[in-house]
Amino acid sequence: MRASNYLFSTLRDAPTDAVVTSHQLMVRAGMIRQISKGLYTWLPTGVKVFRKVEGIVRDEMQKAGALEVIMPGVQPAELWQESGRWQKYGPELLRLKDRHDRDYCVGPTHEEVITELARNELTSYKQLPINFFQIQTKFRDEVRPRFGVMRSREFSMKDAYSFHVSPESLQETYDVMHQAYCNVFDRIGLDYRPVLADTGSIGGAYSHEFHVLADSGEDDIAFSDSSNFAANVELAEAICLKEKADPATQELTEVFTPDCKTIQKVAEFLKLDVTKTVKTMLVKGIDENEQETIVALVLRGDHNINELKVEKLDGIVSPFEFAGETDIINKIGCAPGSIGPKGLKEKGIRIIADRSAAVMSDFCAGANKDDYHFTGINWERDCPEFEVADLRNVVEGDPSPDGQGTIVIKRGIEVGHIFQLGQQYAQALNASVLDENGKAQIMHMGCYGIGVSRIVAAAIEQNFDDKGILWPESIAPFDVAIVAMNYDKSEAVREACETLYQELTAKGLDVLLDDRKERPGVKFADCELLGIPHRFVIGDKGLANNTFEYKNRIQGENQDIAIEQACDFILSAKK
Amino acid sequence: MRASNYLFSTLRDAPTDAVVTSHQLMVRAGMIRQISKGLYTWLPTGVKVFRKVEGIVRDEMQKAGALEVIMPGVQPAELWQESGRWQKYGPELLRLKDRHDRDYCVGPTHEEVITELARNELTSYKQLPINFFQIQTKFRDEVRPRFGVMRSREFSMKDAYSFHVSPESLQETYDVMHQAYCNVFDRIGLDYRPVLADTGSIGGAYSHEFHVLADSGEDDIAFSDSSNFAANVELAEAICLKEKADPATQELTEVFTPDCKTIQKVAEFLKLDVTKTVKTMLVKGIDENEQETIVALVLRGDHNINELKVEKLDGIVSPFEFAGETDIINKIGCAPGSIGPKGLKEKGIRIIADRSAAVMSDFCAGANKDDYHFTGINWERDCPEFEVADLRNVVEGDPSPDGQGTIVIKRGIEVGHIFQLGQQYAQALNASVLDENGKAQIMHMGCYGIGVSRIVAAAIEQNFDDKGILWPESIAPFDVAIVAMNYDKSEAVREACETLYQELTAKGLDVLLDDRKERPGVKFADCELLGIPHRFVIGDKGLANNTFEYKNRIQGENQDIAIEQACDFILSAKK
Repeated sequence: MRASNYLFSTLRDAPTDAVVTSHQLMVRAGMIRQISKGLYTWLPTGVKVFRKVEGIVRDEMQKAGALEVIMPGVQPAELWQESGRWQKYGPELLRLKDRHDRDYCVGPTHEEVITELARNELTSYKQLPINFFQIQTKFRDEVRPRFGVMRSREFSMKDAYSFHVSPESLQETYDVMHQAYCNVFDRIGLDYRPVLADTGSIGGAYSHEFHVLADSGEDDIAFSDSSNFAANVELAEAICLKEKADPATQELTEVFTPDCKTIQKVAEFLKLDVTKTVKTMLVKGIDENEQETIVALVLRGDHNINELKVEKLDGIVSPFEFAGETDIINKIGCAPGSIGPKGLKEKGIRIIADRSAAVMSDFCAGANKDDYHFTGINWERDCPEFEVADLRNVVEGDPSPDGQGTIVIKRGIEVGHIFQLGQQYAQALNASVLDENGKAQIMHMGCYGIGVSRIVAAAIEQNFDDKGILWPESIAPFDVAIVAMNYDKSEAVREACETLYQELTAKGLDVLLDDRKERPGVKFADCELLGIPHRFVIGDKGLANNTFEYKNRIQGENQDIAIEQACDFILSAKK
Repeated sequence: MRASNYLFSTLRDAPTDAVVTSHQLMVRAGMIRQISKGLYTWLPTGVKVFRKVEGIVRDEMQKAGALEVIMPGVQPAELWQESGRWQKYGPELLRLKDRHDRDYCVGPTHEEVITELARNELTSYKQLPINFFQIQTKFRDEVRPRFGVMRSREFSMKDAYSFHVSPESLQETYDVMHQAYCNVFDRIGLDYRPVLADTGSIGGAYSHEFHVLADSGEDDIAFSDSSNFAANVELAEAICLKEKADPATQELTEVFTPDCKTIQKVAEFLKLDVTKTVKTMLVKGIDENEQETIVALVLRGDHNINELKVEKLDGIVSPFEFAGETDIINKIGCAPGSIGPKGLKEKGIRIIADRSAAVMSDFCAGANKDDYHFTGINWERDCPEFEVADLRNVVEGDPSPDGQGTIVIKRGIEVGHIFQLGQQYAQALNASVLDENGKAQIMHMGCYGIGVSRIVAAAIEQNFDDKGILWPESIAPFDVAIVAMNYDKSEAVREACETLYQELTAKGLDVLLDDRKERPGVKFADCELLGIPHRFVIGDKGLANNTFEYKNRIQGENQDIAIEQACDFILSAKK
């Protein structure tokens, strides 16, 4: 591509509504333009990157044996009514009526359409397992579209759906897709983690999210520093390697702690490390007579409660709910700021200690009396009756639940999600096949999404500097830039540029020849903003020495390369 | 691709609503399925063909220097209000409201969005000419979707838009795109014609349609049997090579022609060839005082009037309108069935004869008296005052207007359309650039569409037989089928299949290995229905002679090919 025939549309400044780096850089590099809230046009530089991502995704899906289909973007309401989601989906579903006043939506996802297809086209177990994918524009009417194409209303998604006679077959395809997703992100060259995820509202049994690690991510990911373990912080098991509390060495002492309503205040006031304190939270539970009651949860002072884990425990109200302050005062005789485990059992309250709290000794806790705490509490001596469970979020430094290494927590951007949907949709739409015995069996389904447009943004969040984008080689808009000095005046420069351009292009490289009548500074800035990995500068001075000046976008050092070696140099640098 | 992992979804019978061949065959070959009226899912076989067409289109657009963009499918109403089309477009525009009650449409075309982009991103004549294209799903809410994906509501279109400082620059890019379109259809291997077209409602000055010739087409195309000339029948100039009428040889005779209200009846009754008669039509005109008047149009009896040509003449009402019967009787004294040119001038009626009618001699025409006609009329002697113009549709056998060969008329399917839009949209949205003198100039625009999904159907309309589709090599879903006989039982067959499969695949061919446990007849029928150009049958009998059985889908003869030559045979056959 010759720059004189190209549309750069680069900007010095980002629009004021762009708060994340990728959004700023995509606008500044001339990759996208907003047409309406959450609706973008992709400009040539954006499309070039987008198509490279799309190509890698398509290729890996095909290698994984998935068959490409293209489903309609506009979907009839009937199918959504059959699955029950026409009512349930909420205002993110863009509903509309056609000229005959029939109801449709602009599809945010395609479980219904693919299940309708499957129930018509799949009749025998012999056709299974089968896995369909498409790469398509979806629409979600986000209440607050933001972060550019990261959370836009229109976005491109690769969605795949697999069909099976058994959960075992589903698990096999799920594993294949898990690997295919890893291949996609490995090929693009992203730092990512497949993390165990909550299945959330879509339903189903088992699910992984694929997160690109970046500070701007919206999710906290806990992963091991020395194994493959990774999970959403809320789902990672908090392990305590210590098996037993140390023997007591302190006396139980009641201390006056005026105005210390938080555990931080108490620790400060008593000059204790917060890890020597516990916090006791009272939540709503259900007793053996199905009556609402209060349950006490005890965590180390520096730990945070994990509501998902708590509500999965027997005898706890789900969704998770704290006990009301009046109930607490009535039952315990003090306000929530002074609650502690000692003495609660005597008031008929069940106590569950977090694994880490359960092995503490000589610790500090509320005295169940306003403005008083105990120091020197020891479980066995002072409060021997309690249960132990995993109640908290993991923190950095926790041992990894798989026994290898310790937990690191980073923010992640979700770019993929794979689900075992089970029979939910197939049941709703009655999609069955005949099994080996000629009996109709509702199919099992998996679904697998990758945010194609979001990957473009996520790759930037992970790869940029103050001059612009640092694309991974695999998805850079151009592989190589040739910046011509005095292109219009020097015949020698024009010839050298042309020769190198032809040579690199013939090797299948995507080359930008900057032949514009612009100052070198402008050309360099555009190259850097666009993040082109390799740059040659061709000028008369270098030509006199038979060299081009080369600069790698990431390594950043200028070096002179002999003209006849330039092409091979790039080919070996790209390997 | 192994057939055991593929979804065929082939059907013996076409659905009853499929009336054209391509629709029937696309459903039967498992290429598409209707989800809702005019909305289709493309199945794997359909997608494979679609992607090949898309790839050729994209490649030729890039070679023509067009830059790929992706505009949003859902478009804000504001832009359409600015261009005036929000009101004008009618119910084919699928309008909708988002969750905040703002108006949008699902885009049927993108003139507004691209012009909005151009007015923001293009500021200087130095950036021009520039040409943007996208390949995208569009929506037109057809009142009667039909013919499968040929006239569906959702369809894939390549639309391109070019911007210029001058009409001359627009003409240059228009010519480049004209050639690019020819390249696309040549590469696919279709019999097509670029035809001069009416610009219709989209406006603009100059336009060509690209038609694939097929009996099921909705348009009549006139083209030369020995040159590149082609035009929509309504736009082709009707040429008359004869320059002057022959001298009169017959007397003018008034004859009684009872109940002969049509020219066919008159010719039959008088035992004349219809080419020796003329028909005289009275249409509304405007005289020099801007008063409505009647104008007589005279055509040879076997020719048909062309309203487009007539309404472009001076002094004729546009849109074209016939004179009312009462007006005719009042002015001439007889009903329309007996009108003729002789005597009209005397009644103050302007006469325009079609070029072919103007060189007739000794002809028959109405006598302007109910139930009477003249025979032996001659212009010079009997009716000397008349004008001559091109008033009629061309017919087969007419001389081609470019002077080369004669006209042939065939039906065509419109698969592409290129337009010189001029300044219409740029004016409405005030899209200007600064010219060389620093003065703002409204840009000139071209737009260029190709129906990507429609090409798939049109290619079938042109290439099928009673067994199924006969794909051109360039877009066949698979290049080669390997049909295995007794795949599950014969180790030798499995090995031979596998070897050939690997060998052909390594050469970049798209190969279907039919390893299913089906009868050979089923496999052959699927191969033929899907239109796979090359087929090998591998069985133990052939292997004993060191041969595979080869069949070309189009030529249809079986031949034995030595195993070691099979791969080279295909490679040279594909050239």
